Amino acid sequence: MEPFACDALPGRVVFGAGAARAELADEVARLGVSRLLLIAGGGAESVARDLAAPLEDWIAGTFTGVQPHVPVEVADAARKQAAAVGADAVLSVGCGSATGTAKAVALTTGLPVIAVPTTYAGSEVTPVWGLTDGERKTTGVDTRVLPRLVIYDPELTVSLPGPLSAASGLNAMAHCVDAFWAPGRNPVSALAAGEAIRVLAAALPAVSEDGTDVGARGDLLYGAYLAGTAFAVAGSGLHHKICHVLGGRYGLPHAQTHAIMLPYVLAFNAPGAPDAARRISQALGSEDPAAALQALAARLGLPRGLREIGLHEEQLAEAAQLIEPVVPADNPVPVGAAALRALLRHAWAGDPATLRHAEPGAPPARVRARGAAHRG
Amino acid sequence: MEPFACDALPGRVVFGAGAARAELADEVARLGVSRLLLIAGGGAESVARDLAAPLEDWIAGTFTGVQPHVPVEVADAARKQAAAVGADAVLSVGCGSATGTAKAVALTTGLPVIAVPTTYAGSEVTPVWGLTDGERKTTGVDTRVLPRLVIYDPELTVSLPGPLSAASGLNAMAHCVDAFWAPGRNPVSALAAGEAIRVLAAALPAVSEDGTDVGARGDLLYGAYLAGTAFAVAGSGLHHKICHVLGGRYGLPHAQTHAIMLPYVLAFNAPGAPDAARRISQALGSEDPAAALQALAARLGLPRGLREIGLHEEQLAEAAQLIEPVVPADNPVPVGAAALRALLRHAWAGDPATLRHAEPGAPPARVRARGAAHRG
Repeated sequence: MEPFACDALPGRVVFGAGAARAELADEVARLGVSRLLLIAGGGAESVARDLAAPLEDWIAGTFTGVQPHVPVEVADAARKQAAAVGADAVLSVGCGSATGTAKAVALTTGLPVIAVPTTYAGSEVTPVWGLTDGERKTTGVDTRVLPRLVIYDPELTVSLPGPLSAASGLNAMAHCVDAFWAPGRNPVSALAAGEAIRVLAAALPAVSEDGTDVGARGDLLYGAYLAGTAFAVAGSGLHHKICHVLGGRYGLPHAQTHAIMLPYVLAFNAPGAPDAARRISQALGSEDPAAALQALAARLGLPRGLREIGLHEEQLAEAAQLIEPVVPADNPVPVGAAALRALLRHAWAGDPATLRHAEPGAPPARVRARGAAHRG
Repeated sequence: MEPFACDALPGRVVFGAGAARAELADEVARLGVSRLLLIAGGGAESVARDLAAPLEDWIAGTFTGVQPHVPVEVADAARKQAAAVGADAVLSVGCGSATGTAKAVALTTGLPVIAVPTTYAGSEVTPVWGLTDGERKTTGVDTRVLPRLVIYDPELTVSLPGPLSAASGLNAMAHCVDAFWAPGRNPVSALAAGEAIRVLAAALPAVSEDGTDVGARGDLLYGAYLAGTAFAVAGSGLHHKICHVLGGRYGLPHAQTHAIMLPYVLAFNAPGAPDAARRISQALGSEDPAAALQALAARLGLPRGLREIGLHEEQLAEAAQLIEPVVPADNPVPVGAAALRALLRHAWAGDPATLRHAEPGAPPARVRARGAAHRG
């Protein structure tokens, strides 16, 4: 057992089909709050009103101005409304941006957050907040923004379209894989990540085939929850650092970028993280987890190369330069400019991702060079 | 995914060989406390003094009157000393009773607890407190007693004798198995319990063979930690209810009683909890987890039948009568007086425990009857 440190996070989770309708009132009463600011977003406004109806006497106000990435103006407006109505808690119903807006209120007011997610964001179990001021996004970690109560109700996710569900679920998958080498990794976050990968890999194709299957929706939501708990502790690793640059600098679509990059990052890091590779293999039920992830993305109808989503070949060198300084210092494989360029070129071209060259004991640098050779 | 509720508990864990010596001062400083009441017990007094030496300026007082099961007089004395020295935190070093005494102080004062366990108790990650007044033991759950920081240092457990280590580790194992049908069970506690069973089953024989193997000690301590987190959420099931009666009424030794009963309780409950049985089988790497647990206990030199540790045959009927009313209402298999008598008789005689009659789909009552038949 290697040394580790782990900050376990508190919070109550209630999970079940129909739970939002059946349990919300009792759970709110249990928290001892009675003047809720309802924050609804992500197309969940009518669902939110429906869920809140039995709580009518406790809803002090409703905020529906949710926008992606929580612009500071939106945060200010929500905070002002919370103060104006004398809220003693915030109830968010909707996507990650609805949860994010509730977190923004909690950040400055300390009000407890109750989250009812309707997508597979996972942010409802993390203490991470984010605000955007114009083009500039600021994120931080504060336990005050961690929701005190989360109600997961798979029925609320049934209306999420298939492609969006696949993208959201694969984003959760990316958090799990990345959690194996992210700075805050520990055996407990790895345990959650491994289980989440297993659950997500089974649920994603099922939801993609039949979005009305509440059982599969429940599995996907459970996997996203576990993925959120793994990310909350482990943080972001190489994969998310790369995707952040690709999304921010070149405007590549978030979910597709994740789906494309993940198999290549796994193949890249595996030689330096054999235990992680073994556990991800087990969770995916495949001897080649990079190939398995690529096959999963293909099955979900997601593109395979960055060139398919708008990245130009001549941007690869600059992208590698921008990524190099933000690579986590303790990434299991050394990440230099040349290695990054090779990695990005594979992902750009949509080459087959594979661990088949990652023999135990082979030196990582050599493995990378050989990995580069099998592109043709 | 079945519906569930889960109250995740907060707390920082620092784990590593030598961590107590290397990290304690920094971790205490991180908590922002500076007047510690040091509570040392379970033979860890000299270790405690040694660890506390670099914190000399922060140790406001030392309490060494720890006794098993935390008598109320001991709790009172520790609380008085905490008040007298103006303590702003309690630092316990030692066995579960040392942690328990620190929890007793926290219960009435709200002081944060820092725990440095030297055994495999697991209580350092639970919000459960216990006090004894004469013969009467009172337990309760209060998040105020949950340690804010736990430092796990396998080096501190090396001096724990082999038989005591085996007993303590098997008690952790019992919590894990019981966690699969305890009232607060959920998928997250089952995940921790399954992993803990896997880790404990490998570490227990290794520690038993060589108590100085710090690697194996680390694995055992990690397994005990996970077991504690599973118990903290799931609570006690049928197994612990039975052992509580056997220990309380007939004075049977705690650890041996657990080691003997566990395989029989697993065989008893398995027909009604096939998913639990499957996961415990996987974790133990055996098709017959009840037989595997019995073999493990034998390998650790523990007795096999209750008659070997002082229970008389004529006490079985009364024991069954005393246990029946405390059986959890949602135990996966119906537990009547006749079934309990049969279960206890198996365990008393030290019959082979097995799941081999627990065919899927067979009615539990029939399985029990057939189970009873293979005693001869």
